[in-house]
Amino acid sequence: MKPEVQSMKNYFIGLDLGGTNIRAAAVTQEGEILHRVKIPTEVPLGRERVIANILKIIDTIRQETKGLKLSAIGMGIPGIIFFDKGIIAQSPNFPDWIDFNLKERLEKELNIPFFIDNDANLAAIGEGWIGGGKGFDNFCMLTLGTGIGGGIILNKKIWRGEYGMAGELGHITVYPDGYPCNCGNRGCLEQYASATGIVRMAKEELGVRSSELGEKNITADMVYQLAKNGDRYSLEIFQKMGRILGIGIADIVNILNIEVFILGGGVAEAWDYFIEYTREEIRRRTYRVTGERVKVIKAELGDDAGIFGAAYMAMKNRDSYHFRC
Amino acid sequence: MKPEVQSMKNYFIGLDLGGTNIRAAAVTQEGEILHRVKIPTEVPLGRERVIANILKIIDTIRQETKGLKLSAIGMGIPGIIFFDKGIIAQSPNFPDWIDFNLKERLEKELNIPFFIDNDANLAAIGEGWIGGGKGFDNFCMLTLGTGIGGGIILNKKIWRGEYGMAGELGHITVYPDGYPCNCGNRGCLEQYASATGIVRMAKEELGVRSSELGEKNITADMVYQLAKNGDRYSLEIFQKMGRILGIGIADIVNILNIEVFILGGGVAEAWDYFIEYTREEIRRRTYRVTGERVKVIKAELGDDAGIFGAAYMAMKNRDSYHFRC
Repeated sequence: MKPEVQSMKNYFIGLDLGGTNIRAAAVTQEGEILHRVKIPTEVPLGRERVIANILKIIDTIRQETKGLKLSAIGMGIPGIIFFDKGIIAQSPNFPDWIDFNLKERLEKELNIPFFIDNDANLAAIGEGWIGGGKGFDNFCMLTLGTGIGGGIILNKKIWRGEYGMAGELGHITVYPDGYPCNCGNRGCLEQYASATGIVRMAKEELGVRSSELGEKNITADMVYQLAKNGDRYSLEIFQKMGRILGIGIADIVNILNIEVFILGGGVAEAWDYFIEYTREEIRRRTYRVTGERVKVIKAELGDDAGIFGAAYMAMKNRDSYHFRC
Repeated sequence: MKPEVQSMKNYFIGLDLGGTNIRAAAVTQEGEILHRVKIPTEVPLGRERVIANILKIIDTIRQETKGLKLSAIGMGIPGIIFFDKGIIAQSPNFPDWIDFNLKERLEKELNIPFFIDNDANLAAIGEGWIGGGKGFDNFCMLTLGTGIGGGIILNKKIWRGEYGMAGELGHITVYPDGYPCNCGNRGCLEQYASATGIVRMAKEELGVRSSELGEKNITADMVYQLAKNGDRYSLEIFQKMGRILGIGIADIVNILNIEVFILGGGVAEAWDYFIEYTREEIRRRTYRVTGERVKVIKAELGDDAGIFGAAYMAMKNRDSYHFRC
């Protein structure tokens, strides 16, 4: 028998760089969370302050995981992120960080492989690793939150596209002359099947008929609570949202013949009120043989999908890492 | 010096199994056509007759290419084709050929590797080999004919999807409540941006205002000829067609961040009358950074794209072939 070499157990850090908070966790190779931390991002205090906060949260985790070896770090950021180079090309949360090489900067400070990617891509990777997408070679994840984030897994790999901009599923056009969207287009899926879309449809509803919905400060959660209590108009809003989501998913089915769709984000909580309408619309708008094989299922990791995905991406890419000095 | 071994030069046959004609060509490894043949398919005379015709066309080509070695044969067929198994699951041209293993049948007869795939996939493969897609890792081909065929190349490979049904680009929904489509959906891209769509839009036009278009037996080519002569309504039809095509392409850009789109088929002949509208709509409905990088270009191989693609597929797959006896 060979003598056993006593080696330190490896772990990885997954980070989620949000506009309000930075969330992070120490994650093992098996997908177990050892420790987690959340601190404010402090965007208004400038880029150097945000970087200091990232370093602080990493340091906190390292203090809490002594005796273990930190092998690599991954971080999700909304926006146009160039995974290969580690550059934030453009992020809605950090308007003045244009073409900023965060990977280079942090690898210099930390001397540890550091990777960044779009947060929606990492949510899909996380769900594929230990969530709803586990075991599927191909699937598409839609995060239905304030907007809609998308991540596409093809042959067990995230599909980033030519410019890292694949998976902008919230901007599929469903109504060519519909609501204007922040992206410059009209009638984007995001304008109907996100929390923002639900609020707007609810407000629109008020204009034409009475409802139990209050007249001001409507939130998507209010519409959800009213739907739970049987409010007819609120239920109709979720039905409409469900159908329109189905139109968008059917487009993806017709283009890619993917069979598994995973829905996450706050709006997916209203599952029972929209899912049948989504499924019906997918069947209606695809060929029978493809449509009847489509599965729309719930995400399993909640807010942690991106953190797990960031840790997994770091784990899978650490060997491709070459330290620059 | 080693003595040179005198070996026969290889060639491949690419076939296109249409509802009216079978077209075939002997193609070299360099993409040169040595000989081509076209004979009637004779669908009404039954499956055995069609198979006999396929064998006849192959035999004719072999007679004409004596001294060369036929290495493998590829054939494109519209419909749901299972490339891996060589099965025609369902084809609009051959309604009674359900789940028919054409590969097995013909390999037994010929003792030569025989492969089948969806005709639109093979057109994309052909254009990628020696046509408009040459040199691009990722592109999407749309054949604008009676309907719309689609083929998607990702990382230099055709993307077939889970069930061989990827690339049904004609069935992207552009108007959720639009024209009914044969597929069961409404408002499919194919109902606007194909020859069928142009004819219908032209007829619709007649209902509301006068035009130089005759009232009966309108064809897409008639609309094209009138547009050439400056007929305002015919020009408007192509503008509308171009815009709607742009909506569909923008969806693909938002989903996949592909940058190259190749347009073939008869309708693409009217290029000058629609292309600017297509490009404008793509820019309008995608993020600036992705949209401005999109190239929409002309297919280069015309009707031969599928034949070249079939030959190339046969060439690339012959090593995976194991003869069943």
